[in-house]
Amino acid sequence: MIEKLYEQLDVNYAEMVEIRRHLHMNPEPSFQEEKTAAYIREFYETLGVDVRSGVGGNGLVATIQGSKPGKTVALRADFDALPIQDQKEGVPYRSQVPNAVHACGHDGHTATLLILGKVLHAMRDELEGTYVLIHQHAEELAPGGAKPMIEAGALDGVDVIFGTHLWSMTPFGRIDYRVGPIMAASDRFELTVQGRGGHGASPHETKDAVVIGSQMVTNLQQLVARRVDPLESAVLSVGSFIAENPFNIIADQAKLSGTVRTFSENIRTLMEEEMERVIEGTSRAADSTYDFNYMRGYPAVVNHETETMYLKSIAESVPGVEEVYDAPPQMGGEDFSYYLEKVPGTFFFTGAMPDGDVYPHHHPKFDFKEEAMLVAAKTLGSAAVNYHKQAK
Amino acid sequence: MIEKLYEQLDVNYAEMVEIRRHLHMNPEPSFQEEKTAAYIREFYETLGVDVRSGVGGNGLVATIQGSKPGKTVALRADFDALPIQDQKEGVPYRSQVPNAVHACGHDGHTATLLILGKVLHAMRDELEGTYVLIHQHAEELAPGGAKPMIEAGALDGVDVIFGTHLWSMTPFGRIDYRVGPIMAASDRFELTVQGRGGHGASPHETKDAVVIGSQMVTNLQQLVARRVDPLESAVLSVGSFIAENPFNIIADQAKLSGTVRTFSENIRTLMEEEMERVIEGTSRAADSTYDFNYMRGYPAVVNHETETMYLKSIAESVPGVEEVYDAPPQMGGEDFSYYLEKVPGTFFFTGAMPDGDVYPHHHPKFDFKEEAMLVAAKTLGSAAVNYHKQAK
Amino acid sequence: MIEKLYEQLDVNYAEMVEIRRHLHMNPEPSFQEEKTAAYIREFYETLGVDVRSGVGGNGLVATIQGSKPGKTVALRADFDALPIQDQKEGVPYRSQVPNAVHACGHDGHTATLLILGKVLHAMRDELEGTYVLIHQHAEELAPGGAKPMIEAGALDGVDVIFGTHLWSMTPFGRIDYRVGPIMAASDRFELTVQGRGGHGASPHETKDAVVIGSQMVTNLQQLVARRVDPLESAVLSVGSFIAENPFNIIADQAKLSGTVRTFSENIRTLMEEEMERVIEGTSRAADSTYDFNYMRGYPAVVNHETETMYLKSIAESVPGVEEVYDAPPQMGGEDFSYYLEKVPGTFFFTGAMPDGDVYPHHHPKFDFKEEAMLVAAKTLGSAAVNYHKQAK
Amino acid sequence: MIEKLYEQLDVNYAEMVEIRRHLHMNPEPSFQEEKTAAYIREFYETLGVDVRSGVGGNGLVATIQGSKPGKTVALRADFDALPIQDQKEGVPYRSQVPNAVHACGHDGHTATLLILGKVLHAMRDELEGTYVLIHQHAEELAPGGAKPMIEAGALDGVDVIFGTHLWSMTPFGRIDYRVGPIMAASDRFELTVQGRGGHGASPHETKDAVVIGSQMVTNLQQLVARRVDPLESAVLSVGSFIAENPFNIIADQAKLSGTVRTFSENIRTLMEEEMERVIEGTSRAADSTYDFNYMRGYPAVVNHETETMYLKSIAESVPGVEEVYDAPPQMGGEDFSYYLEKVPGTFFFTGAMPDGDVYPHHHPKFDFKEEAMLVAAKTLGSAAVNYHKQAK
Repeated sequence: MIEKLYEQLDVNYAEMVEIRRHLHMNPEPSFQEEKTAAYIREFYETLGVDVRSGVGGNGLVATIQGSKPGKTVALRADFDALPIQDQKEGVPYRSQVPNAVHACGHDGHTATLLILGKVLHAMRDELEGTYVLIHQHAEELAPGGAKPMIEAGALDGVDVIFGTHLWSMTPFGRIDYRVGPIMAASDRFELTVQGRGGHGASPHETKDAVVIGSQMVTNLQQLVARRVDPLESAVLSVGSFIAENPFNIIADQAKLSGTVRTFSENIRTLMEEEMERVIEGTSRAADSTYDFNYMRGYPAVVNHETETMYLKSIAESVPGVEEVYDAPPQMGGEDFSYYLEKVPGTFFFTGAMPDGDVYPHHHPKFDFKEEAMLVAAKTLGSAAVNYHKQAK
Repeated sequence: MIEKLYEQLDVNYAEMVEIRRHLHMNPEPSFQEEKTAAYIREFYETLGVDVRSGVGGNGLVATIQGSKPGKTVALRADFDALPIQDQKEGVPYRSQVPNAVHACGHDGHTATLLILGKVLHAMRDELEGTYVLIHQHAEELAPGGAKPMIEAGALDGVDVIFGTHLWSMTPFGRIDYRVGPIMAASDRFELTVQGRGGHGASPHETKDAVVIGSQMVTNLQQLVARRVDPLESAVLSVGSFIAENPFNIIADQAKLSGTVRTFSENIRTLMEEEMERVIEGTSRAADSTYDFNYMRGYPAVVNHETETMYLKSIAESVPGVEEVYDAPPQMGGEDFSYYLEKVPGTFFFTGAMPDGDVYPHHHPKFDFKEEAMLVAAKTLGSAAVNYHKQAK
Repeated sequence: MIEKLYEQLDVNYAEMVEIRRHLHMNPEPSFQEEKTAAYIREFYETLGVDVRSGVGGNGLVATIQGSKPGKTVALRADFDALPIQDQKEGVPYRSQVPNAVHACGHDGHTATLLILGKVLHAMRDELEGTYVLIHQHAEELAPGGAKPMIEAGALDGVDVIFGTHLWSMTPFGRIDYRVGPIMAASDRFELTVQGRGGHGASPHETKDAVVIGSQMVTNLQQLVARRVDPLESAVLSVGSFIAENPFNIIADQAKLSGTVRTFSENIRTLMEEEMERVIEGTSRAADSTYDFNYMRGYPAVVNHETETMYLKSIAESVPGVEEVYDAPPQMGGEDFSYYLEKVPGTFFFTGAMPDGDVYPHHHPKFDFKEEAMLVAAKTLGSAAVNYHKQAK
Repeated sequence: MIEKLYEQLDVNYAEMVEIRRHLHMNPEPSFQEEKTAAYIREFYETLGVDVRSGVGGNGLVATIQGSKPGKTVALRADFDALPIQDQKEGVPYRSQVPNAVHACGHDGHTATLLILGKVLHAMRDELEGTYVLIHQHAEELAPGGAKPMIEAGALDGVDVIFGTHLWSMTPFGRIDYRVGPIMAASDRFELTVQGRGGHGASPHETKDAVVIGSQMVTNLQQLVARRVDPLESAVLSVGSFIAENPFNIIADQAKLSGTVRTFSENIRTLMEEEMERVIEGTSRAADSTYDFNYMRGYPAVVNHETETMYLKSIAESVPGVEEVYDAPPQMGGEDFSYYLEKVPGTFFFTGAMPDGDVYPHHHPKFDFKEEAMLVAAKTLGSAAVNYHKQAK
């Protein structure tokens, strides 16, 4: 039966590419994906697949019922694009929309899942269990689409969830898995240092916001070095420091912003608390005030051990997969984390490095190798249809 | 004879106010003072006073020859305005020029010296020595007008020089003098920290220009605390720190600028050298590069002792002077310093605090008490005509 | 056959305890272990086991030849004590030597291996392969005994090596294994900041070694935060900062020392190089000099994957082992690292937490649960005698 | 009359040297000056001068009544030695007491005032006014002798006070005067940083007292640079930083001490308050605690303008005085400050640079040119006997 699934995916590969290119030419940024959602709904409705749209926003959930009893397996693909100008050249499927492009591969995720859905639907009489196909909007922009889709019932009755990301930096033919954290919690902070401005020649009448802000930057670096367990990971980067003044004026205010990346909630909470402590103490030492705003982004994507090792063993027998790799975690964020907080499952990377120039995700020239969609579809499909045996 | 000088100044005070108001309504920024220069030339030519224009730029030098032998005494007034929008209200003499205003009192200096010149010219048969009236352009903008005027011969044959600044922050009726430094050397620096930018989650692949710049700011503060003799004065202020980036991008570059104020050339040179040392060392520690540009402004105005004590004793007997005050130095700069590097002399402040609201110099609402011009004219005039006795 | 090995170890457990206590009462610090070495030699000679002494110093290598062909398996136990005063109370086997005690459990390691050797020797007719029993001196004191023993041929012909550490902080019944780094590289540094002393009232005539040293401490903290890949581990701690002076004297010199812990040679080399860079740059910024000495201790103990997973599976069936745990690495150092640089193998921890008060290793009151020696002997023994099957 | 005073001092110079050398050979440290006090009392009693001993401790006050009405003029000399081992060579008057020496010239001060007292007593019939000779103990050790002597009435009825310090670093023949602050307030602080110690490999379980102390040192340097008016003087030096630990142990505690020097009570109070603020804020940022103890030493010696200018004019006509110099202030402390808080007066330096090697005050080889005592006696004597004219 799994062979038939693979064959059917091969047969439908041309359409998968067609869908991907259609989506690529018609990108819609996060929370604005109306045409894309309509396209997905129409695809399923045309096939006669049960699909629910408007789930937690622009999200959709298609459901395919196998003829035999079994588990309920969810598969997820996101479909939002990025507000970036496409700078790819020499491809027929360039974005037709100014300042919008699928520069992260979500078009591929969607094409992969639609065709996999089509094949599962066609094979439904042979299948055990239930297949919940989650087409998620707005992954790129916090607070994201996963959370409202879950709140709107996308995971109801689901036993397990699988998801993948096509990855341009990973060689084609490789699947990257990892037990535990595979993507970081990505948080953001803004800090306004409020001193008291004045003339550059009279520092004693001021509270120099440039000096105070500089002390904060250096003091904050102590956190990773001294307060975080050296066996854990954390990053704190102040990306922006702005205090623009004439050269002979002492700054009244400095505005800083930056990001914190962590892999565990303990360290994440520690960082937030310790940042506040360092900022408060430094400010107090300078007799100044501050406004500190720590904005939590997505939590870390933490893969469940059993499901990850299952996925690993599945991947090892998928045609086209040449290597299944125990990969180090990525520092980027993903709202797949919310699904894994609710149900067991795993998130993995499908190698999609193109043959020519390679650009990182979010780059204006980003592209991926389309055959990787087929590998992703087979891996997700095999994981889904075989899950019922494993789970017994 | 000195009584006659005072009387004649009183008699001409109305014209002094008129001139000041005319100049106030027709301000010209530094190095653009063509109409003002023409006005001054015409004033002297109409009186029949010998005047040389185009001295080192828009500068003018008028010369009045007394009938008896004596010293050659120079008096200086500057006449450039500032590129600021006048925001004064309720006065008939508001600036008629957008974005230009005499917000530092140079209009008053010029009116003072013109009328004093008129009176000295009228009294020339009774006077000893020679009077060199230096009308200087471009005091507000480095490299200033003093230097080229001196190079063009403005001080040729001059034995002594006196100058004053009307001062809105000093009570009317007070003359502020000081032996030694009375105004600071005011220098400027620009510093570009060149790191290597990158993603906020991957600090190890970057050289974080915000962290490096912050270390420089804190390290530079050590100079005043540790390297400068505590009995000397120095100020180092970083006014501007700009590294504008998305929150999750580590800065490639940070741009800093600021000012250094000192009262002695030794300390000034020390600060410049030590700044370079701190920046170079900090940059080397971070394996980054930098571009540091230290731009010397005017040197400190250093009053000569004999001439200052002479001026003090003169001021004590000038009508309208109620207090002669041994004042602390000002941290601002003045290119009167160049004259004092060439000939003996002194620079003093004439109290000109207005009756109502008081605004500091360079404020858009700055104004001064016009009667202070009369006090200034009498003090400068008395210092000039009495100098020949003292100098014997 | 493995059951017989376990039985024989049980039978000989009383002697194992006896040996351990004898060694415990007669400790000898690193590089001074002459009596201990003689004791080990005599033990083997009495049994008729082939033993070579004086291997790379006080080290010994005993060899037991099985009757059947097979691999050559090395087992290692260290036997040096620490220069600490024993402060245990209420035990009959307190150290009889002032300022020397087995406060790290090496007495237990030795007793374990001696009795295991005795049993293997007795069973030699049933065994495959060759057993190389490495009794190592001087583990506690760099440069350690492992290196000279290897140079003296201790690993000649060896196919695989296993070693364990009895661990007082790990529950009895647990074996801690780990693929990859299990113990850190532990390096030491000494830094002398040479400023120029002087009177506290005249900082400008000095180079303040307290300020310079303080800047180095804070700047060094940036390394872990900014230069180390956040997915790698590194610790840099300045343990000591000494600049002792009268309160009104500015320090001429400050002496700092500390430790660096890393798990990979790349990061280790990076830390050493970047420390020098930060110190050199900071020193240059202050126009001072320094003397920096980075002393490499043992490299990280990096377990080989195949042998570690083999050991894990072996441990799971050893009587007395209740849990086999994928443990995080330890930040301490061990010269077992040198063996693993030469031949495949693994190093693991045998839980030996005592029933009452628990003290960390190197504590003056340190003790361990003696039954853990039996668990260690069975695990090492099983790993050794079963290895020939696995390796085919 | 003043000529006679000068003559009599010349006549008695040999005895002055004799007294000085006797005192030099018999030094007594602060608060232990019993023999010295007895010596002084006996000197006056032998002459029949009215002397009160035990004033505020070991202090003495001699009073000489002129025959004519006039002001009451106090002159002060201190007489304590230092707990230092004399290392002078080749002089017959080396200290006979181990670890005690007059290494600051107080022996000379005392000899000067005793002989001046003898001469004034002899000339009392020709003198106007009253002469109060204050022989003060314990100048070198806070809280000093001046305060208790004043509380015991030493200044009762006094109109003016003069004092001098023989100064080895000032050329012989020069008198250094200064209006306003001439010696600094010299304060001391002790700071204990209480972190939480631990193993060097586990910083996250500690509060690293070396890092926290280092941050305090660097942050405290900001005070002089940013919080003190650049026209004022202040010094803050951390002389001592002690955190002694094994290299691999993170410090539990760091002990810092240092000194603060200022010339005005405003800045002194500012420094004390701001130090506490910086320490408290830095400690709070690190979640550690501290113990900060700021111990005020003597206030600044602030000379009164009228009396200082009077002394200057007097000094200009004293035989042997070649230069009267407007000197910059000294950063050292003196409890003469307490007298000047109560009555008008001035404190000046009498140049006493020896002919050969020159050592600073408190150096084990310190010595001064004895002829300077004669210059000091004549200057103090002239200031005292001429004061009545000036004060009318």
